[in-house]
Amino acid sequence: MDMEFVSELAIEGDTRIVLVVVDGLGGLPDRSTGLTELEASNTPNLDALADDSVCGLLIPVGRGITPGSGPAHIALFGYDPLRYIIGRGVLAAIGAGVDLEPTDVAARVNFCTVEDGLVTDRRAGRLATEENARLCALLNEIVLDGAVAHISPEKDYRAALVLKGRGISPGVTDTDPQRTGLAALPCEPVPGAGEQARNTARLVNEYVLKAREILADRYPANMIVTRGFSCLPDVPAVTDLYKMRAACVASYPMYRAVGRLVGMDVLETGDRFEEKVATVARYWSEYDYFFIHHKPADSAGEDGDAAGKMRAIEEVDRSIVGLLSLDPDAIVVTGDHSTPAALRSHSWHPLPLILKSRWERPDDVMEFGERSCAKGGLGAFPSRELMALLLANALRLEKFGA
Amino acid sequence: MDMEFVSELAIEGDTRIVLVVVDGLGGLPDRSTGLTELEASNTPNLDALADDSVCGLLIPVGRGITPGSGPAHIALFGYDPLRYIIGRGVLAAIGAGVDLEPTDVAARVNFCTVEDGLVTDRRAGRLATEENARLCALLNEIVLDGAVAHISPEKDYRAALVLKGRGISPGVTDTDPQRTGLAALPCEPVPGAGEQARNTARLVNEYVLKAREILADRYPANMIVTRGFSCLPDVPAVTDLYKMRAACVASYPMYRAVGRLVGMDVLETGDRFEEKVATVARYWSEYDYFFIHHKPADSAGEDGDAAGKMRAIEEVDRSIVGLLSLDPDAIVVTGDHSTPAALRSHSWHPLPLILKSRWERPDDVMEFGERSCAKGGLGAFPSRELMALLLANALRLEKFGA
Repeated sequence: MDMEFVSELAIEGDTRIVLVVVDGLGGLPDRSTGLTELEASNTPNLDALADDSVCGLLIPVGRGITPGSGPAHIALFGYDPLRYIIGRGVLAAIGAGVDLEPTDVAARVNFCTVEDGLVTDRRAGRLATEENARLCALLNEIVLDGAVAHISPEKDYRAALVLKGRGISPGVTDTDPQRTGLAALPCEPVPGAGEQARNTARLVNEYVLKAREILADRYPANMIVTRGFSCLPDVPAVTDLYKMRAACVASYPMYRAVGRLVGMDVLETGDRFEEKVATVARYWSEYDYFFIHHKPADSAGEDGDAAGKMRAIEEVDRSIVGLLSLDPDAIVVTGDHSTPAALRSHSWHPLPLILKSRWERPDDVMEFGERSCAKGGLGAFPSRELMALLLANALRLEKFGA
Repeated sequence: MDMEFVSELAIEGDTRIVLVVVDGLGGLPDRSTGLTELEASNTPNLDALADDSVCGLLIPVGRGITPGSGPAHIALFGYDPLRYIIGRGVLAAIGAGVDLEPTDVAARVNFCTVEDGLVTDRRAGRLATEENARLCALLNEIVLDGAVAHISPEKDYRAALVLKGRGISPGVTDTDPQRTGLAALPCEPVPGAGEQARNTARLVNEYVLKAREILADRYPANMIVTRGFSCLPDVPAVTDLYKMRAACVASYPMYRAVGRLVGMDVLETGDRFEEKVATVARYWSEYDYFFIHHKPADSAGEDGDAAGKMRAIEEVDRSIVGLLSLDPDAIVVTGDHSTPAALRSHSWHPLPLILKSRWERPDDVMEFGERSCAKGGLGAFPSRELMALLLANALRLEKFGA
């Protein structure tokens, strides 16, 4: 069942859908307590909501597959994450706040250390973000013959390079050798690519050469490597697909960018969850669908900080009542992927999910947790099937067939 | 896993399969009791069967997708409902009892009201079925240049138009503007369609023009609109696919037609469930597979009549013992789709299912209900996978691979 099929059934309506994404929500049991971060959190409001709803588990991409934020979110909006690929370069650029145009080519850049012609540290001694920004400013003096290059700092040693110009293409290879002890590679057109890719490879090699000259005395950040050349994917807008006015309520640049990529209006809001709830309330009559993104649970998980992740979840719990008081026709609370503190990274584990709607069959689940939701009435299902379920509960899908 | 794959493994056998389809079986909880129609029904025999069986949930087409009767049934017989599409016109025609030929083109017709050139009521004041039949008799006087047209009354304001002739095709657009306040549309060939579609569009426009003349003084039914032009899909027969003699035990024309469409023998039977059980008993030795269809639960659900739906379910319960006494090798009791009285329409919700076979693992489910079956041993799975499961339990599928 693909997105186009759902799209053909979608109709307009005077109903409201809310999707709350607690980034990195899913976790693993703590060795001593035996409880996941969510299970150990104090969440009276989410527990009451689970008690009054139907619950289940979401599988972001596939069993055993750990998704990045791009595919994890794309799937929540109903897109096949294996078909709509957001390239690494594009994700870096939109994460760095760049407003990419469809013809731009973007790449992820690492500042790195080169000694005797070999890459000896692909992170340039975990360069400080401030130094990264200073080096990017220097590199933005580079003038190319036939394109405009702009590099934007991300966190630590990472940056995003964007090429603008006519006759360029993402069909070129990485210069990043991926391992230390090897020389940086020349950028080459991928096999079968045409003239535009040859031109792009020439531009990239010219850029890297000039960057190397500028960085020569900046040891350990005396070189750059590039990878993941990509363009904005041609993503049909959720507004067209699902005939709804859609708003993205996120404060982190990358998630705002993902929202914009799928055609949502991106609203100004704050970092705190209660500020996002206030934003939704303010725009309640102007949109049919609200995607609310809350970042701190993921960040804490990545840091191995279970207590911090619990605080982030409890912050959502405290303000969820404000969302419910708006009386959405369908509201889901879930995550994009798991980020167990025990792993300090994204993981493949399914996400717990609450779906509250007057048109569902409440189940026996009485609290919001990974293992309670595993027994929920919706069972486990792919994230990309959630959108149709939300639209159905908002009575925004017509019957299929006679 | 497609039908062709299952077909390659299918073998003949001396075993019996029974599929009981309680139309519109699934429901939603009543506001006051918290119970669905099925959960509130008095079903001692179905509960005993559930206790002694393995249970689960069927997803007719996909999560969130509300199916029409066509796709919902096609899936139960193992066909991909997105691949084998029964057009609206075809369904109208077979529902009206027309014996369609593969080259016929059928359309759904609405009698409607036109004032000052605009459609003001797409149901002609909810025309009475008897008047509908009289108007169809008048319209059957129409003679076309190059094809034969025949219109058959359905219920209320609905009818089915069938065109027979050489050089016609279903590749033409609707004349139904779908909304009031608009003029009826001219029938046109769909983009890219060929000469046959152009010819068909000409015939349809000629027919509509003549119908308008005949109906001119029949206000409010002074015009027709047409939609869903389609031909019989080319459906491989279940008898060939699964190497079984298959019987359809249904009394409603549409379900008898669907049975015929997939290659079943359609047996004469009555409206009451016990009559259908008697029909199965009578033909027990002559068929390997019996599809029993029971309509009233769906009709009551469409009327918002929860008590009527309960009575329809309890009627099945009373006679199910007669089926079990025939000792089928595999018997399933389920529905085609949900029709909650609370929604007064088909819905997207999964269907509860009981599978009784000596070759399954009985689970903990002790009563037949949506939420009890959600905890069943089979889990939730697509309707189209049921056929292989039934064949397996009748020991009619060979091992795949060595």
